[in-house]
Amino acid sequence: MKITVLAGGVGAARFLDGVVQVVPQEDVTVISNVGDDEEFFGLHVSPDIDIVIYTLAGAIDAAKGWGLAGETFHALDALRRFGYETWFGLGDGDLATLAHRTQMLRSGATFSQATRSIAGAFGLRLAVLPVSDQRIRTLVETDAGMLSFQEYFVKRRTDDAVRGVRFDGVDTAVPAPGVVEAIRSADIVAIAPSNPVVSIGPLLAVRGVRDALCTTSATVVGVSPIIAGKTIKGPADRMMASLGMTPTAAGVAEAYRDFLDVLVIDEEDRGLAPAVEGEGVRCIVAQTIMRGPAEKRALAQVVLGAVQ
Amino acid sequence: MKITVLAGGVGAARFLDGVVQVVPQEDVTVISNVGDDEEFFGLHVSPDIDIVIYTLAGAIDAAKGWGLAGETFHALDALRRFGYETWFGLGDGDLATLAHRTQMLRSGATFSQATRSIAGAFGLRLAVLPVSDQRIRTLVETDAGMLSFQEYFVKRRTDDAVRGVRFDGVDTAVPAPGVVEAIRSADIVAIAPSNPVVSIGPLLAVRGVRDALCTTSATVVGVSPIIAGKTIKGPADRMMASLGMTPTAAGVAEAYRDFLDVLVIDEEDRGLAPAVEGEGVRCIVAQTIMRGPAEKRALAQVVLGAVQ
Repeated sequence: MKITVLAGGVGAARFLDGVVQVVPQEDVTVISNVGDDEEFFGLHVSPDIDIVIYTLAGAIDAAKGWGLAGETFHALDALRRFGYETWFGLGDGDLATLAHRTQMLRSGATFSQATRSIAGAFGLRLAVLPVSDQRIRTLVETDAGMLSFQEYFVKRRTDDAVRGVRFDGVDTAVPAPGVVEAIRSADIVAIAPSNPVVSIGPLLAVRGVRDALCTTSATVVGVSPIIAGKTIKGPADRMMASLGMTPTAAGVAEAYRDFLDVLVIDEEDRGLAPAVEGEGVRCIVAQTIMRGPAEKRALAQVVLGAVQ
Repeated sequence: MKITVLAGGVGAARFLDGVVQVVPQEDVTVISNVGDDEEFFGLHVSPDIDIVIYTLAGAIDAAKGWGLAGETFHALDALRRFGYETWFGLGDGDLATLAHRTQMLRSGATFSQATRSIAGAFGLRLAVLPVSDQRIRTLVETDAGMLSFQEYFVKRRTDDAVRGVRFDGVDTAVPAPGVVEAIRSADIVAIAPSNPVVSIGPLLAVRGVRDALCTTSATVVGVSPIIAGKTIKGPADRMMASLGMTPTAAGVAEAYRDFLDVLVIDEEDRGLAPAVEGEGVRCIVAQTIMRGPAEKRALAQVVLGAVQ
């Protein structure tokens, strides 16, 4: 059974941690958001990709959900001396990853190649593909002006009401090698429980990706990141609401209805099953909060079991 | 009294530590070797400049003579994962300096501007000038092949016999802004107790520098890095010998004779004073081993006292 997972950051990483308990890594392809990428101090930071890699390598700081376990921040502290803003928490070990990525990109490697190199160095055997090798920048329109995603998310802690979201560069971006193929040739395509607007949104906006999802013979199964109208983490609920979407599992079904076969919603949202089905999406009710390895594994089994 | 110091790494930094006890920093200009510079992991490392800056800022690891005090090496450890050679000891705090320099260079700043920014961030008020804004690479010819200076010096621990030394890029390099002026307008130009071949040599090889030293009205005073035929640190003695130079204070006088007015030699070498004078260079005998602040200060006073 080949599974392709469309992924954002923390929620996707936790979901994938369950998937690899159930499916050999060789049969898993991750298509990752890159709209959150930033350059800090000349180094290319790709938070969603690194969260997935660090998590699957068992190297993540589990309490924070990002960064490496046991990380120190001495270089970041020292950067203050030169007047840099240091609100983005780049650890010393993490800097090695970024230096390697940046070095590869500067030497002419594609972003896909750099990602493969990093995933391999962390011992992963699954494929991690950026959705595109071109630069896509998620910009968040707020009353405080247009912010990069990390400014909105980390620097300003999602305090700003979101008036709009734009994916700069997406018009000229093409899917990275293997992306469309991974959607077409999978038995199951899972949409991870990630923010539909800023995590999955950039993937869907890349030319050809949404079409591939609509036409693939794979079963396309989403996991709702919204439970009882709230997200576990992050601003997806507020963001959906302020953009006129319904911040519920039913709203997720609506956002994905053109390509989604199945949506897994939480037991708490059992009452929303008819609304999900009303979008033409089959609804599975399950425990979706992933507190530990057993819940992650169980959720992966639910998603994989959705193929009929 | 304006003093300009031609400088290499550790010995120059210790000498300058004495100079700034005696002369206001505003009256001191350092012209630094850049032939030892390297790029590691995409970051521009300039060891001689950083040793001088860290030393004068009181931030140096005094026991090692290079790097920052209290330094950690977590990023370097993490770089091993990606297959990088990690024989060059880049600490986490040091990486911040390198990231800032590299970032400035990539943004179009000159090497001089990046150096000024770093010196300023470390609170220095003296001018630190790279001898040139162009890249000059010291290459060391050995039986093991042509090595970059850091390969010869750090990776292979100066184990190779030196057959020749070449300063790649020096033919097209021009002095950085202020370099020739600092030599011409100083009251005293000091040649720090640095390796004549690979620390001072690249400076002298830049077009116009040696001429400026020959024609300046400043008193040009050297401090011999060779004491009783040996260096305190580093391979200058062996390198001079293998290149056919005399590895003594007299050999230093000979190497600099066309521009040197005075050479300060160690008391141990008192017997070499006639040989130094025989090169047409006035000889001052003094205590030149700088064990602590008092000796550094005393040596600076000797050098400054050489102006008549």
